[in-house]
Amino acid sequence: MGSLPKDCEHLLKNMVGDEIAMNPLDLGEFRRQEQMVVDFLVNYYKNVEKYPVLSQVEPGYLSKCLPSSAPEDEEPLEAILDDVHRYIVPGLTHWQSPTFFAYFQTNTSTAAILGEMLCAGFSVAGFNWVSSPAATELESLVMDWLGKMLDLPRPFLFSGNGGGVIEGNTTEAMICTLIAARERVLRRSGHDSITKLVVYGSDQTHCSFQKAARVVGIDPRNIRALKTTQSTLFGLSPDLLRKAIRLDIDGGLIPLYLCTTVGTTSVTAVDPLEPLCKVASEFGMWVHVDAAYAGSSCICPEYRKFLNGVEFADSFSFNAHKWLLTSLDCCCLWVKDPNALVKSLSTDPEYLKNEATESKQVVDYKDWQLSLSRRFRALKLWLVLRIYGVRNLRSHIRNDCRLAKLFEELVVKDGRFEVVFPRNFALVCFRIRPSAVTGMANGQAMEDEDREAWKLNEVNKLNARLLHAINASGRVFITHTEVGGIYVLRFAVGAILVRERHVIMAWTVVQEHANSLLSMSGSNTHA
Amino acid sequence: MGSLPKDCEHLLKNMVGDEIAMNPLDLGEFRRQEQMVVDFLVNYYKNVEKYPVLSQVEPGYLSKCLPSSAPEDEEPLEAILDDVHRYIVPGLTHWQSPTFFAYFQTNTSTAAILGEMLCAGFSVAGFNWVSSPAATELESLVMDWLGKMLDLPRPFLFSGNGGGVIEGNTTEAMICTLIAARERVLRRSGHDSITKLVVYGSDQTHCSFQKAARVVGIDPRNIRALKTTQSTLFGLSPDLLRKAIRLDIDGGLIPLYLCTTVGTTSVTAVDPLEPLCKVASEFGMWVHVDAAYAGSSCICPEYRKFLNGVEFADSFSFNAHKWLLTSLDCCCLWVKDPNALVKSLSTDPEYLKNEATESKQVVDYKDWQLSLSRRFRALKLWLVLRIYGVRNLRSHIRNDCRLAKLFEELVVKDGRFEVVFPRNFALVCFRIRPSAVTGMANGQAMEDEDREAWKLNEVNKLNARLLHAINASGRVFITHTEVGGIYVLRFAVGAILVRERHVIMAWTVVQEHANSLLSMSGSNTHA
Repeated sequence: MGSLPKDCEHLLKNMVGDEIAMNPLDLGEFRRQEQMVVDFLVNYYKNVEKYPVLSQVEPGYLSKCLPSSAPEDEEPLEAILDDVHRYIVPGLTHWQSPTFFAYFQTNTSTAAILGEMLCAGFSVAGFNWVSSPAATELESLVMDWLGKMLDLPRPFLFSGNGGGVIEGNTTEAMICTLIAARERVLRRSGHDSITKLVVYGSDQTHCSFQKAARVVGIDPRNIRALKTTQSTLFGLSPDLLRKAIRLDIDGGLIPLYLCTTVGTTSVTAVDPLEPLCKVASEFGMWVHVDAAYAGSSCICPEYRKFLNGVEFADSFSFNAHKWLLTSLDCCCLWVKDPNALVKSLSTDPEYLKNEATESKQVVDYKDWQLSLSRRFRALKLWLVLRIYGVRNLRSHIRNDCRLAKLFEELVVKDGRFEVVFPRNFALVCFRIRPSAVTGMANGQAMEDEDREAWKLNEVNKLNARLLHAINASGRVFITHTEVGGIYVLRFAVGAILVRERHVIMAWTVVQEHANSLLSMSGSNTHA
Repeated sequence: MGSLPKDCEHLLKNMVGDEIAMNPLDLGEFRRQEQMVVDFLVNYYKNVEKYPVLSQVEPGYLSKCLPSSAPEDEEPLEAILDDVHRYIVPGLTHWQSPTFFAYFQTNTSTAAILGEMLCAGFSVAGFNWVSSPAATELESLVMDWLGKMLDLPRPFLFSGNGGGVIEGNTTEAMICTLIAARERVLRRSGHDSITKLVVYGSDQTHCSFQKAARVVGIDPRNIRALKTTQSTLFGLSPDLLRKAIRLDIDGGLIPLYLCTTVGTTSVTAVDPLEPLCKVASEFGMWVHVDAAYAGSSCICPEYRKFLNGVEFADSFSFNAHKWLLTSLDCCCLWVKDPNALVKSLSTDPEYLKNEATESKQVVDYKDWQLSLSRRFRALKLWLVLRIYGVRNLRSHIRNDCRLAKLFEELVVKDGRFEVVFPRNFALVCFRIRPSAVTGMANGQAMEDEDREAWKLNEVNKLNARLLHAINASGRVFITHTEVGGIYVLRFAVGAILVRERHVIMAWTVVQEHANSLLSMSGSNTHA
């Protein structure tokens, strides 16, 4: 018993190739190659500041550098890393460069890289509890840790009968909560009502929301992007929301879901959560709070005020992979009613049945998300929280905000520029102000209104040219937006390697290009 | 010009805290800590065989071991890795253990870990081309490489006007293609037709398909899981499909999408692609081929036959993170008509507008997937293909299949067992055969039919007890399924560290537990 039947020995003889088959986890090679990659990355970080931060390659460049088929035989890592250096690095837009001020940052960190190594090293597919209890339990634990750091109301925490989950991204968090809300309504009113469901956001809500709503089958005509204005600092007006909902109800539609935002992508506007939630609750709607970027800042007490009112929402998410040093991907979602997710997203095929699930004592995260398999992302979040600690993470946030304030003050000091919207976090929205652009529309016969529109358009075009010139320099990378008809340059501080000198350098680059643009257009030069 | 205005110097004085703020990328620490994690992983792999492969912890164990809040101050990595060793490792189900034969494997490898390090190190969010041209172009290139390795028809490759994208998982691939198909129909027939759309799979199609269809708003009553039987080896019957479609059309419904499978999760059944695609094309439906597990094997010419007919499908996906050494997550999706994805999934907010996109010369992968931000997953796939080369990857696949064949032959040699379904790849479906279970239903007064049902049930229960006993031993981990009423033990060979001795050991564990179960139940012992 327990030994190989003698008559099976011939099977083994046929298998002689086995022990000499390739070994994808040779531990000696593993050590040697990891060391090479560490050296490569150290060298990359040392030099990243010297590269053009916005890649300067032309479309299609890479297919000219690399073969069109995979190699038949193994290649040495030396040759591959050499190709990374020669062909990949020039094609990167360097998100970790200290002169990257575009979009919002995606911070990496030593802790995040360590976390990814362990995650790929264990490579567990923790779709349910039994498939790796530690993956599930660490995620639940660390989401409660983070929830407490954010001072989230207890009903969002596992310890308060809610719970948190790490999704890959905000779209997924929105899709999952939209489906939970959708199913709650459709179970009552029948599936055909899907054509009557309406969802609400503002014209500042992230584009992912429109996409998520379309994905879950909301009629595109029933996706509301309510207008915001300067008068509410581009926050969504509760009165406008109520009016829109009433109008939809009068039209026979069913209000489903409100997506609010803390820190919009364009200008980091903050929706007034409490009054919006109160309106939504009158109509039994699900309210989600999307704080993708700004959420991280709320671990600092002085920024926590922006979440006031979250206690009236149903779900809340933010991306630790933006500002909280965890690198892509780590979108943290909390819900007050996990069962709403599970009822709408669960699967129960025979091949996954197990006693732990049947005991109902455990969390099976596959039922909180779209996919079945999931990476052990909790490891990297846990490593980040422990390796840095709450105090350092707060200091990290505050430092970026201080540097943004420095940039803001530099802008303010230069009379040709203006800060277009108040700064809430570490994003500065600025432009060359219209009054700096003289000599325009003079002598042209126009009505006052036309002249204003024409002038706005000219100012916008000038600022667009400024952005283009700055980015073409390769010295800094800034992106733009347009809000209320105004073309705005967005200066987002947050790269982990950024220091004052980079902010100051960026400002001088802005000034230099503004000087030449304004002198070309015959306007004021620097006062 | 270009220097800091003198009157701004006071700003800098206020920033003295900056240079001493925490540094999340201290290069010295980076080197030291990476080394520690490499040591940790090497040690883990050396010992993984000694751990119970299926974690033996109890629900809720971890919250008793770790604090309930994040630490205020930084902690040394030594202490954290010690906690990983003490608290996380025992809570892992060890997917990389050579005695893991459950589900389907999620292979990691040295190359995958290196790839994840570089990915987290660069931490670029390559949502569109300009945000990191190399991330987009390498992905396009490597998807063409892989497509050629699979001998995919040219219309699926970029070089044939189709194209490939790395999604996170199969559900996402299904959702994206479902939406492309859905929008194609709804643009024609109006959004209200969403309630009439019908999707088709078999009762062997992965549960992700039902979920994906629900996500995109298909009425659950319109999701067909057509019955399969032993007579077609659990492949979907084209005749049955045609009948079901005709019935639905007669009922006023609109056939939308067919999900076929190459290598089902339960028993690696293969749907007959060509005749199914022909039926679907009669009705203008989208056909997706899900080869999540088995797709990897098709890089070997001898397995490529299982993809015959894929040339008539619209999309094809498989998970390189299962069997192709890339670790989670790497789901490779090809479509013949990328524009169908882009038309349904694109977003175009002002803050992402850029010249490259407007030139229409580039791929913006955000429009091929659900989320906006995306990890640079192409790096790890590229590293895997180059570090191992096609020849070694084929050898890796073949070795697993050889070991599965060994196990199959061991099963066949033992008269008490049977291989329930023919083995196509590296999964062996087996059980204790009914004839080995004697002494059952003797002396009980039953109709023949009832007796058969009762006996089947008893045999199923015995096999379930066998599985439970095997897994409780902690020595090997095997999972089960139920197909055609038969409870089946699934022995999936594929862990990267597996060698013959583990397969043989696993078989002896199976035999030992079968011996004691069968002797307890008074049945035949090993002949």
